[in-house]
Amino acid sequence: MLYLIGLGLGDAKDITVKGLEVIKQCSRVYLEAYTSILTVGKEALEEFYGKELILADRETVEQEADTILKDALQCDVAFLVVGDPFGATTHSDLILRAVKLGVSYRVIHNASILNAVGCCGLQLYNFGETVSIVFWTDTWKPESFFNKITKNRRNGMHTLCLLDIKVKEQSVENLMRGKKIYEPPRYMSVNQAAEQLLAVIQNRRLQGEEPEVTEATVCVGLARVGGADQQIASGTLQEMTTVALGDPLHSLIVTGTLHPLEVDMLKLFAVDKSVFEQS
Amino acid sequence: MLYLIGLGLGDAKDITVKGLEVIKQCSRVYLEAYTSILTVGKEALEEFYGKELILADRETVEQEADTILKDALQCDVAFLVVGDPFGATTHSDLILRAVKLGVSYRVIHNASILNAVGCCGLQLYNFGETVSIVFWTDTWKPESFFNKITKNRRNGMHTLCLLDIKVKEQSVENLMRGKKIYEPPRYMSVNQAAEQLLAVIQNRRLQGEEPEVTEATVCVGLARVGGADQQIASGTLQEMTTVALGDPLHSLIVTGTLHPLEVDMLKLFAVDKSVFEQS
Repeated sequence: MLYLIGLGLGDAKDITVKGLEVIKQCSRVYLEAYTSILTVGKEALEEFYGKELILADRETVEQEADTILKDALQCDVAFLVVGDPFGATTHSDLILRAVKLGVSYRVIHNASILNAVGCCGLQLYNFGETVSIVFWTDTWKPESFFNKITKNRRNGMHTLCLLDIKVKEQSVENLMRGKKIYEPPRYMSVNQAAEQLLAVIQNRRLQGEEPEVTEATVCVGLARVGGADQQIASGTLQEMTTVALGDPLHSLIVTGTLHPLEVDMLKLFAVDKSVFEQS
Repeated sequence: MLYLIGLGLGDAKDITVKGLEVIKQCSRVYLEAYTSILTVGKEALEEFYGKELILADRETVEQEADTILKDALQCDVAFLVVGDPFGATTHSDLILRAVKLGVSYRVIHNASILNAVGCCGLQLYNFGETVSIVFWTDTWKPESFFNKITKNRRNGMHTLCLLDIKVKEQSVENLMRGKKIYEPPRYMSVNQAAEQLLAVIQNRRLQGEEPEVTEATVCVGLARVGGADQQIASGTLQEMTTVALGDPLHSLIVTGTLHPLEVDMLKLFAVDKSVFEQS
């Protein structure tokens, strides 16, 4: 049996009782390590579970899926995913391969950023399509996320922006030389995401557009959601460029139409309460 | 301290390790009982937690919020919510009152239907606004949910439809007589939701419209998501009127634009695989 188990968002104890019981009974336990991170490391998890964890980066999962699954024909294998197994990234491909090989699977759900963002007081059913904001490079500055945010906002909907994570990335030089040397991990901050959004707004104005999202649009920055040191800050997009939220992971919400109860909640986290006084 | 603790979706063991530890240390533990249900009853939870639970229905929470919160000034109080505390219903009002009274609060997240629906293989970031489908009566047949589904579908987005729950409802007669006699709980099935959708489609055609959603639109019916006996069925809206998914709770997804990997996943749950053969 293959178990896909969500670990939640905070630390080792955010796993469910059921998930923990299953891990303890599994012969092999993989930890998916490329889409997200917990605030604690692999060692802390191993100690809490009393099990050795096999780190599964993108290469492992893509190249060795059949190895993972062949084990699961004979014994119980767990595949641990930060958040929910079907959160920001789905593991559909692994499941489809499992079914093809005749391996049964079971999912043990947990919180993911997609529902835990509700902690800022914005109603989850008022969110439109989720977008990803990627790190721009000197030569690659995609703006498609801005169009989706604009569409959501025109429909009155909030947008959750998942911010880029670069783990186990190779420099172009090392990639060309075939050297498996990896750059230090990078996590986009709310400040960086806000700067990129402002740059798009400037671009659009240069093109004669009047963007729907501006410096004054109400946004929410969130850091380490679900963790003991979680931080939330609400304010204008401009304010999001300087707000100090500390360590990763960060997420950014661009609001749509705000309801009075939502405004009351956002005031609790306001960088500057006067922004919300007129609402 | 006030703890808002998500219980997840299945049974007692779907609580997180952290959530369970907090419950054990709390002096009073309320179980929110009006927005959803677990597949197990209050007694099973009490036995597993080793704690007595105080059922908090809508009346309790609205009328006795201050009582709940005054306790929380002196000791630790837990407020348990099926799914995530910010899932289908937010508890913003309780939090705002707590902050006003100077009561600290902490949220312990869990899976909710809003992220666990990913188990059917549809990508969560391709969902638009979530809608609720309410039980129609002889005199009240709102259709607003259909317009939202249509808007999502035009934007290529899937729609999660949360299906109505009637718990502790009074008949008009008992309400007028002031008798606190409650009707048996009712939970809308996927079949009932599909019938109501088909009725709206007929209405729209009578008004000369060509609805975006038709009998042939691909839908997904889900029952008891996260439970050991979870069921998923994919097929046309017409097929959803007769699919047998068993006990509550049910949810329905009306799909938007389907990606190839999503189609492959939906085939696993197909009522009739030929529906997906052309995709």
